[in-house]
Amino acid sequence: MEVRRVLYMKGGVGDESYARNSTMQGTILSLTNTVVQEAVTDMYCTTFLKSIAVADLGCSSGPNALLVASEIIETVKRKCRQLRRRLPELSLLLNDLPGNDFNTIFRYLPEFYRRKGLNQGNGTTHGRCFVSAVPGSFYGRLFPSKSLHFVHSSSSLHWLSQVPPELQSESNMPLNKGKIFISKTSPPCVSDAYAKQFHRDFSLFLKCRSEEIITGGQMVLTFMSRRSSDPVVEEHSYLWELLGQVLIDMASEGLIEVEKVDSFDAPFCTPSPEELKHEIESEGSFAIKSLELFEASWEAAHNHQNCYNKATKEKDPMLEELSTAQRIAKGIRAVTESMLESHFGEAMIEDIFSRYCRHLEDYCSSNDTKLFNIVIAMVRK
Amino acid sequence: MEVRRVLYMKGGVGDESYARNSTMQGTILSLTNTVVQEAVTDMYCTTFLKSIAVADLGCSSGPNALLVASEIIETVKRKCRQLRRRLPELSLLLNDLPGNDFNTIFRYLPEFYRRKGLNQGNGTTHGRCFVSAVPGSFYGRLFPSKSLHFVHSSSSLHWLSQVPPELQSESNMPLNKGKIFISKTSPPCVSDAYAKQFHRDFSLFLKCRSEEIITGGQMVLTFMSRRSSDPVVEEHSYLWELLGQVLIDMASEGLIEVEKVDSFDAPFCTPSPEELKHEIESEGSFAIKSLELFEASWEAAHNHQNCYNKATKEKDPMLEELSTAQRIAKGIRAVTESMLESHFGEAMIEDIFSRYCRHLEDYCSSNDTKLFNIVIAMVRK
Repeated sequence: MEVRRVLYMKGGVGDESYARNSTMQGTILSLTNTVVQEAVTDMYCTTFLKSIAVADLGCSSGPNALLVASEIIETVKRKCRQLRRRLPELSLLLNDLPGNDFNTIFRYLPEFYRRKGLNQGNGTTHGRCFVSAVPGSFYGRLFPSKSLHFVHSSSSLHWLSQVPPELQSESNMPLNKGKIFISKTSPPCVSDAYAKQFHRDFSLFLKCRSEEIITGGQMVLTFMSRRSSDPVVEEHSYLWELLGQVLIDMASEGLIEVEKVDSFDAPFCTPSPEELKHEIESEGSFAIKSLELFEASWEAAHNHQNCYNKATKEKDPMLEELSTAQRIAKGIRAVTESMLESHFGEAMIEDIFSRYCRHLEDYCSSNDTKLFNIVIAMVRK
Repeated sequence: MEVRRVLYMKGGVGDESYARNSTMQGTILSLTNTVVQEAVTDMYCTTFLKSIAVADLGCSSGPNALLVASEIIETVKRKCRQLRRRLPELSLLLNDLPGNDFNTIFRYLPEFYRRKGLNQGNGTTHGRCFVSAVPGSFYGRLFPSKSLHFVHSSSSLHWLSQVPPELQSESNMPLNKGKIFISKTSPPCVSDAYAKQFHRDFSLFLKCRSEEIITGGQMVLTFMSRRSSDPVVEEHSYLWELLGQVLIDMASEGLIEVEKVDSFDAPFCTPSPEELKHEIESEGSFAIKSLELFEASWEAAHNHQNCYNKATKEKDPMLEELSTAQRIAKGIRAVTESMLESHFGEAMIEDIFSRYCRHLEDYCSSNDTKLFNIVIAMVRK
């Protein structure tokens, strides 16, 4: 499975789109907003640059894509007002894989400029802001050397660049049979394989960013994580565990081939705070300012004045009518459909997610559905 | 009519898409390639920058969008090899209006990087290239101050930012009744209105670019023009004249309202070389290096090994079977459909273009269908 090609959030603005089903990611953005504000302010007040370049890595499509940009603009504006300084030129560089629906983001842009009181054109009173899209994998160079001042990434770095190749034996036999992520019954080599891929990916990510960010530039990263140092704990992997169960059920009913399930593994990771610290310190280009583990619950994500509502100024009636399990199922579908479709075929998708939803209903009735995330702020040394 | 919103080349890769019907624009790119190569080489050899930012304004979608980028990369590579210099980092900034189909360009990117032997990722042997998309109108600022080294625009600057407001009387009555562009029977105020809008737009374009391009940076612009200083000459406006005739025919048959035709005018211009020279000299930021008028014929565009063929390495069988008139009609449809659809409604499109094609068959049988273009190379003083 070529992750760069098959991983993208469901485009458009339809019922199954990421734009309509990303309230959890929107909530995570809100929960980490203070950390972003502090880092941006700190960066600006130590440099007072006339032109600032900000990158958002894994921006996705839909309202979340411009939410971070919006917060960063507000932060800089507020500080400039306070210090009676002229607003710097702001370049907002939105990155995601080439399969991302950038067109839909661009449709929002004229309204975005208008609302922010920003002028892409010729006025300078309210400051200038230049939004651009940079398609490509963040596990590689994306920007010219020393061209960035602030880098942000939310709900993206838990995706690996590839399924760990170590999940296949030397004779190409799948080693995580009947499972699609680290599970209690997976052999120990499975969590090792994931740890190795995470190490390769995250160290490469840090190396690339260290070349792109100027000294004194800052970076805030938020992604799924786990509390425990033990990777085999269900609280952070129930979403994959239940999806795996659906696939095995369908294989036992002869709807999909068992081999297809055996050869499918999620290109996903949930590193522990210790693993992350270790990677950042070994790579050596960044100094950690703060590192914080936090919980985000699907219930709170729903009750929270979410982003889509913010954009339309009203609650999305579609989401209003759904149970928590239904919202989780739609949220996970918007994120994983492209991958599952490429591996199991389009015809399977509806069945997979209606079954998934039933499994989630059971799970939600007796379990906590919160997700653990980590937010790390760091400075380029 | 809000041009920024309703003007975009037909997206996707279907039979009516711009990607499949832009051989004329591809041919124009080839005809001006030498001018681009000279300007890029000249810019590089007077600066020897380690990082070069190149913008293509009005890049559209489809294979033409990356063709210029490709030529510029090859030019820099060739020069570096010759001078035994390390390749600079290249930023390729693709601009078009927010309605442009950027997603389709991005789908070509992985293949583009592979073919060019460029590495977006981690290798440095073959040089690094960063492609990004900058949505917005080029009749406004698009890039941070002094951030560009080379600017290119082809087959785009003949589009105005708006329909000249002077085409309506003070009491909002249409002044170019029954016509959609400067025509022999248009009152003189019509060509004046177009000249005024061209002046406002082009001088704003030059001002914005002068702020974005570094001293010594270069710009090559190609767009439709006219030989004669008289704007009322059919040889450069037959495409609009025939389209206007179709609309009037349909109005006389009661298929569309006469008022709809009267209130529709093309946001288009074909300045003469003298007008252009005058604008550039009055604005004062750029020195003209060369200015050349040239002809491009639809026949040659077809026989020319066009871009789509280059991409697939074979002739497009759809185009092979078409007459010149059919190819012109499809080419014009890919460019104007979004505007006509927004003004006359989607239901009218098929009828408009089948009639247009018949008018073109007649016209082609007794007239030359060549188009006049101008290519100007200039340096930021």
